[in-house]
Amino acid sequence: MIRRLCVIGVGLIGGSLARALRQAQAVGEVVGAGRDPRHLQQAVELGVIDRYSTDLAEAVSGADMVVVCVPLGAMEAVFRRIAPALESEAVLTDVGSAKGCVVAAARAAFGAPPPRFVPGHPIAGTEKSGVAASFAELFVRHRVILTPLATTDPEAHARVRAMWEAAGAEVVDMDVALHDEVLAATSHLPHLLAFTTVDTLARMHDHEEIFRYAAGGFRDFTRIAASDPVMWRDICLFNRDAILAVLGRFRDELAEVEQAVREGDGAALLERFRRAKAARDAHAALLNRQESGDRKSEVGSQKSEGRNS
Amino acid sequence: MIRRLCVIGVGLIGGSLARALRQAQAVGEVVGAGRDPRHLQQAVELGVIDRYSTDLAEAVSGADMVVVCVPLGAMEAVFRRIAPALESEAVLTDVGSAKGCVVAAARAAFGAPPPRFVPGHPIAGTEKSGVAASFAELFVRHRVILTPLATTDPEAHARVRAMWEAAGAEVVDMDVALHDEVLAATSHLPHLLAFTTVDTLARMHDHEEIFRYAAGGFRDFTRIAASDPVMWRDICLFNRDAILAVLGRFRDELAEVEQAVREGDGAALLERFRRAKAARDAHAALLNRQESGDRKSEVGSQKSEGRNS
Repeated sequence: MIRRLCVIGVGLIGGSLARALRQAQAVGEVVGAGRDPRHLQQAVELGVIDRYSTDLAEAVSGADMVVVCVPLGAMEAVFRRIAPALESEAVLTDVGSAKGCVVAAARAAFGAPPPRFVPGHPIAGTEKSGVAASFAELFVRHRVILTPLATTDPEAHARVRAMWEAAGAEVVDMDVALHDEVLAATSHLPHLLAFTTVDTLARMHDHEEIFRYAAGGFRDFTRIAASDPVMWRDICLFNRDAILAVLGRFRDELAEVEQAVREGDGAALLERFRRAKAARDAHAALLNRQESGDRKSEVGSQKSEGRNS
Repeated sequence: MIRRLCVIGVGLIGGSLARALRQAQAVGEVVGAGRDPRHLQQAVELGVIDRYSTDLAEAVSGADMVVVCVPLGAMEAVFRRIAPALESEAVLTDVGSAKGCVVAAARAAFGAPPPRFVPGHPIAGTEKSGVAASFAELFVRHRVILTPLATTDPEAHARVRAMWEAAGAEVVDMDVALHDEVLAATSHLPHLLAFTTVDTLARMHDHEEIFRYAAGGFRDFTRIAASDPVMWRDICLFNRDAILAVLGRFRDELAEVEQAVREGDGAALLERFRRAKAARDAHAALLNRQESGDRKSEVGSQKSEGRNS
């Protein structure tokens, strides 16, 4: 049970976590924090938070759990502002999409990563952003990866784990570097490719005609290109090495595919496509495990897309 | 009304067309044709076709509508085998994913594209293949592109249009070269990228760990990598020039993205991601138009993935 939760950055992830913990009756009071008072006021009106402050030190005062849900580029500044005001028993965690950079930010802001700091990353989300898109079931049957350090307090670790389990998630622990490599491969690379595909097509002279005839496969493939550009810029900047490693592998493979197409090498293409299909089919069960949770997100995302267009 | 329909290649597309026309009571008899008698027998048992022949000349005999649903690489051989046996009033069409090569195959097989040949391409499908995956609603609210030539008989054109409309599709006409360019951009490029992404990850030493932590975005992005490898090899071979053109544009853009990541150029990344998101949002309404039809396909595909894994 969390007595007072402070959520810094009340958007899709922070808002959904607050909603989930309220629904599970796992939290007493929820204090929101951020830069934009209108945005925070909206979170109050939606019933996501009880009150808010744009002064981060004030916001964390008296909180026993602080969750930082800001883009990776803002982590260090947030840590520096809350460092003097954190309660000694408060547990600190974050939801950043890369973990090496957040640990480095904590080291820079606090001198060393505080024992009661537990880096975390919920593997959930949609291409939407903002508190209006938040919902209590976002994390149900989704994984949350925690990357505790050797110096992390086991009791703080257990409290963060219990928080995410109360929100319906499956919590796993992972090494910081492995997390960043795995996420670069399964999330950061696909986002870069989806953004680049849409941008390539949008810059073609007959792009109106092109998009008009796109079908369901294209819609699924490019859905993640509607994600928040600032968040993804920060991921590219702050998980650079792991992204460059997998992007280099991809670039080399794509060059081989291009060469096979140019040379009309059907055998080479068939071998690649068969290997890929076999891998996709073999992992389909894993990929579909979170089906019902995702389905809800997709229904929401379609509504969002309808509004945008 | 079609008196006797001959479907050459009774898989997902051909089987779904037969089912749809039967359901709409728009066809009398359905004759299947192909190489594998067990496969065709299954189509009879599923009620998709009335009878079949593995002799293509025999199969088209007496048919007033012949739909060729085979991979692009098999088109010319099929045209050569049916050419002597086609009834003079029979309308011939195909469902190939590229159209320039099919027109060339018809020219090679018939001497010139027959006036009653109407090249066509339903923009529908799932990553599944085979007659067991076929269903009558596959084309509902999906587009079918016809690419008639200057020499195409208007009455034959009208009959193919009416056939697809009876199956629930929206039919549009397009120039052959524009079709091939548009499909290279919206379908062939994404499939190549999805195949290459999965193959890249599958070849990494810790691929088990990587796939284990993939979330919904990855699942959507790579769904099309479960598509039929032979069909996609043929598309690469037979729409080569249009694919190389768009693949070259993509490769150059991706190189710029990689450079921006390497240099930590956040402004360049943000500009690209914003432009891509704006294009994706602007076209979301178009992309979602066929939503309800696709949703049904996706439900089917999840079942299929469950079986495969």
